Amino acid sequence: MAFRFEILAKDASSRARLGEIGTARGSLSTPAFLPVGTQGTIKSLTPEELVEVGAEAILSNTYHLYLRPGHETIGRLGGLHKFIHWERPILTDSGGYQVYSLGGLRQISEEGVTFQSHLDGSSHFLSPEKVMEIQRTLGSDIAMVLDECIPYPSPYDYVKASTSLTTRWAKRCLQARENDEAALFAIVQGGIYRELREESAQALVQMDFEGYAIGGLSVGEPKPMMLDILEWTIPLLPENVPHYLMGVGTPEDILDAVMLGVDLFDCVLPTRNARNGTLFTSLGKMSIKQAQYAEDERPIDEGCPCYTCRHYSRAYLRHLYLANEILSSRLNTIHNLFYYMNFMRRIQEAIRENRILEFYRAHHAHASERAIENPTRNQTAWG
Amino acid sequence: MAFRFEILAKDASSRARLGEIGTARGSLSTPAFLPVGTQGTIKSLTPEELVEVGAEAILSNTYHLYLRPGHETIGRLGGLHKFIHWERPILTDSGGYQVYSLGGLRQISEEGVTFQSHLDGSSHFLSPEKVMEIQRTLGSDIAMVLDECIPYPSPYDYVKASTSLTTRWAKRCLQARENDEAALFAIVQGGIYRELREESAQALVQMDFEGYAIGGLSVGEPKPMMLDILEWTIPLLPENVPHYLMGVGTPEDILDAVMLGVDLFDCVLPTRNARNGTLFTSLGKMSIKQAQYAEDERPIDEGCPCYTCRHYSRAYLRHLYLANEILSSRLNTIHNLFYYMNFMRRIQEAIRENRILEFYRAHHAHASERAIENPTRNQTAWG
Repeated sequence: MAFRFEILAKDASSRARLGEIGTARGSLSTPAFLPVGTQGTIKSLTPEELVEVGAEAILSNTYHLYLRPGHETIGRLGGLHKFIHWERPILTDSGGYQVYSLGGLRQISEEGVTFQSHLDGSSHFLSPEKVMEIQRTLGSDIAMVLDECIPYPSPYDYVKASTSLTTRWAKRCLQARENDEAALFAIVQGGIYRELREESAQALVQMDFEGYAIGGLSVGEPKPMMLDILEWTIPLLPENVPHYLMGVGTPEDILDAVMLGVDLFDCVLPTRNARNGTLFTSLGKMSIKQAQYAEDERPIDEGCPCYTCRHYSRAYLRHLYLANEILSSRLNTIHNLFYYMNFMRRIQEAIRENRILEFYRAHHAHASERAIENPTRNQTAWG
Repeated sequence: MAFRFEILAKDASSRARLGEIGTARGSLSTPAFLPVGTQGTIKSLTPEELVEVGAEAILSNTYHLYLRPGHETIGRLGGLHKFIHWERPILTDSGGYQVYSLGGLRQISEEGVTFQSHLDGSSHFLSPEKVMEIQRTLGSDIAMVLDECIPYPSPYDYVKASTSLTTRWAKRCLQARENDEAALFAIVQGGIYRELREESAQALVQMDFEGYAIGGLSVGEPKPMMLDILEWTIPLLPENVPHYLMGVGTPEDILDAVMLGVDLFDCVLPTRNARNGTLFTSLGKMSIKQAQYAEDERPIDEGCPCYTCRHYSRAYLRHLYLANEILSSRLNTIHNLFYYMNFMRRIQEAIRENRILEFYRAHHAHASERAIENPTRNQTAWG
């Protein structure tokens, strides 16, 4: 297997690490943020534009591609990379989170999960073996085990049983590997219970995965609780593998988690916000539809070198948004993803130079100018 | 004024001409097709992509920009070119056609036209002087006179009175010029009545405009009637100025009109069809949603060198369309506009080489494979 992970530098004042993940399709610097391509496209962008904003890898959703166009179709067409014209690494989730978001439309058993498609109501069954087959057929570079994402809040007994099931499913995923090229990451569950997080982490670590995700976070729990859970859990994971916080989050969440030792993130926030006209800037968030921008000649973020900021005024972007033009989503997405990618590059530099704490303080010096952000994980089955 | 028009070659077997329009912002080869940027954007594309598909000039809609964001806003921001990041020539229509498409929401008098905005119902008044002011403020390179677009069918007396009004409005537009940089094109009306087309053309030609459009076509009349009207009207226009057929059309309509002496076209057809999943190919039109393309690895048009055809399969484009992804509109629009621009380049070459009749026959040899196309002009007030 071509997968490797190397730690290049450690910050002295925190658990932050600078690293590099290598795959057969290229490497990515960590801490890394993966744009989310739910249906085989990062909404509104071409792969060339993703490269231009600095994306080194993307996430794609097993659940969505399984339902449409179908993983077997993608397999017959030469795999996901060829299908979507993206040559760099792809991490695929297992579908566990999307199935969780279906709520009453799913039934979980020891064997797997039965659910109704959100597209046409048709009935489907996903097992650990099936999600491994799907991810193999797609040609994923980093595959995820099937897990049950536990709602917040949930009672102890339910969390204990569910976490134990996720552990058994992880083992079945490992056993279902067939000389796969893809790395396989396990997902630590355990809800908000330290003891159960520890049980989950210890059981999974014994199985020797290539990376570990901390799952079941950003599902509505208070933010300090999320940080507590990361603080308990990450030291239980092997140091020399990637630590992945799924579905997170705001730049502030990402920075907090990096300082607790997280290497990998994904979230729909920058792309979804872009389509809703909410833009990330060095001075906080901006709602482009506001009347104050009607004749504002400045770019979104003065000094930002992205394509959008080089060529377009706030006034034009406001006009495109109000006129419901497709170009609005494109230009806003380019800017927001550039903001995120640049944010990750700056985090990487700060770790390399041993000044992540200084970076943290500088970033939060602007906090009072920022709107309250809701760190809710937003990748539901509906995209 | 920087405007000029030069005829570079004439076809021996038809009235087709190869030419070049020069403006202060660059030149365009004719016969030319202008993509339509209704609201200050060719839907889904960046200006760089327009250049890549071969667009040398675009059309933008006075009516739409007047209502939103307002021509005065655009003027204060440095004009339309700067606002939308497009440095090449822009032709602006006068709004006459859009107001026509409002139907009962408009009232025409000698002075001008009163109408209700399709956006918010607010009341507005456009006169010849006002549309000149708007186009001047936008910074148009080629402006159009205000006209009344006459519905088909209409009785002789109505057409006669309306055509006469359009002629008086054209005169007022000329008088309202203020050392404008923009060229000004008149619009020949006269409905389906040869005598009235002649009256209109003769009166307008006396006023000495920089170009002449043939208006009131592609509004539902039978296609042979449209060709008859072009055949009567174009010989009445000065030879050494551009002849512009507004709102047309299919590749076949364009080719017919070129052979009757038309130099300039615009239409929403390639861009709107793209968003509806209908693609132009060398073998006719293709509806990308069809099940037969579900696992079709081929590009839309084998041999087409556009970005879309270089990188994406029919199967992926079908998936994007069915998944309602923004990238679907983008990739389809790139292909369709490339098809149109390439079609115009091939027409230009055929005229240069004196073989437009041969080109016509070769193009129609594929006619039996083409679906019936509806040449209805589709630029309503609703875009």
